[in-house]
Amino acid sequence: MQNVDFWYDFASTYSYPAAMRIEALAEGRDIAVRWRPFLLGPIFAEQGWRDSPFNLFAAKGRYMWRDLERICGQFSLPFQRPTPFPQNTMLAARTALALGDDARPVFSRAVFNAEFGQSRPIAERPVIAEILKDMGYHPAEILERAATEPVKQKLRMQNEEARRLGIFGSPCLTIEGGELFWGNDRLEMGLDWALGVRPRA
Amino acid sequence: MQNVDFWYDFASTYSYPAAMRIEALAEGRDIAVRWRPFLLGPIFAEQGWRDSPFNLFAAKGRYMWRDLERICGQFSLPFQRPTPFPQNTMLAARTALALGDDARPVFSRAVFNAEFGQSRPIAERPVIAEILKDMGYHPAEILERAATEPVKQKLRMQNEEARRLGIFGSPCLTIEGGELFWGNDRLEMGLDWALGVRPRA
Repeated sequence: MQNVDFWYDFASTYSYPAAMRIEALAEGRDIAVRWRPFLLGPIFAEQGWRDSPFNLFAAKGRYMWRDLERICGQFSLPFQRPTPFPQNTMLAARTALALGDDARPVFSRAVFNAEFGQSRPIAERPVIAEILKDMGYHPAEILERAATEPVKQKLRMQNEEARRLGIFGSPCLTIEGGELFWGNDRLEMGLDWALGVRPRA
Repeated sequence: MQNVDFWYDFASTYSYPAAMRIEALAEGRDIAVRWRPFLLGPIFAEQGWRDSPFNLFAAKGRYMWRDLERICGQFSLPFQRPTPFPQNTMLAARTALALGDDARPVFSRAVFNAEFGQSRPIAERPVIAEILKDMGYHPAEILERAATEPVKQKLRMQNEEARRLGIFGSPCLTIEGGELFWGNDRLEMGLDWALGVRPRA
């Protein structure tokens, strides 16, 4: 069975439809997806951006919100523009890494749905706690683990690996051999590529 | 018959596959395409960029070249990375506007092919002259017309309209009602939308 790595920042708008779509696409190809949360903030900061490029570049931002709305319509996903944007995703990313590999996708989709489907403030502890509770966890236990040094270090290592792989945005797919695919628009191509299938139009 | 406007800067990398693909996609839907060359430089300059973002942001640039190579493979288009990048597109844009509406798509595709398929310096007059000659024109006559004030003014007006429409990159499709679609990845959605068809996955 082939593996792919799915890299995402919880504040990333196009990562929402990608997170909701990838498992069905991967299962149809018999591919296993490793969910790899990371933080875009430090990567953007290296480019001199202290805010989302969608806020810094107004025309691009206006376009993105409309495009995301159309894409959510295409895939029948609920959409509500979150405020503020972007949200701080440190807590969500650490919590995702505090969970096991099996729970991480379920948690991550729930966070994306809360943020972009219901416009809930996912930077806030009660919102994350409620998602954990709905999954059957004791929220305090997981949140405590998420604040430990090993989990913080795990997130730093994710970020270092993302940078090393040439990741500059979210979502991204990486596959063995070093090939990188950026964006919700590249999920199908990236998954096909992982199987050795080269698209031909 | 529906109309769409296809906006492109000749230096734009993803505009190359888009220019090569759009007519077949539009014909299949009985849509007429208006080819609208414009200049991205002034729009980028307003964002504080004095160079292509693919040069300013190295990781994004590295990714783009590999992605473009994959896309050209997908659509069986020749690809050679042009140097320098980006090329000055003032001459090509003015020449495209000096030609009639019927000749503009043929000329534009030939320019994109020379630039990204053969790595030829399309900023240079002899390259543009050769393309015009191959099309059956007297190059000197068209190039003289391209340097006149009415053509220069026409290009300035294209740029003003592009900005007014919220265009921040290339290629873009615009349709009646104000909807904007950015990128080679959105050609199909934009053309469907022009017909009132909303994509459903």
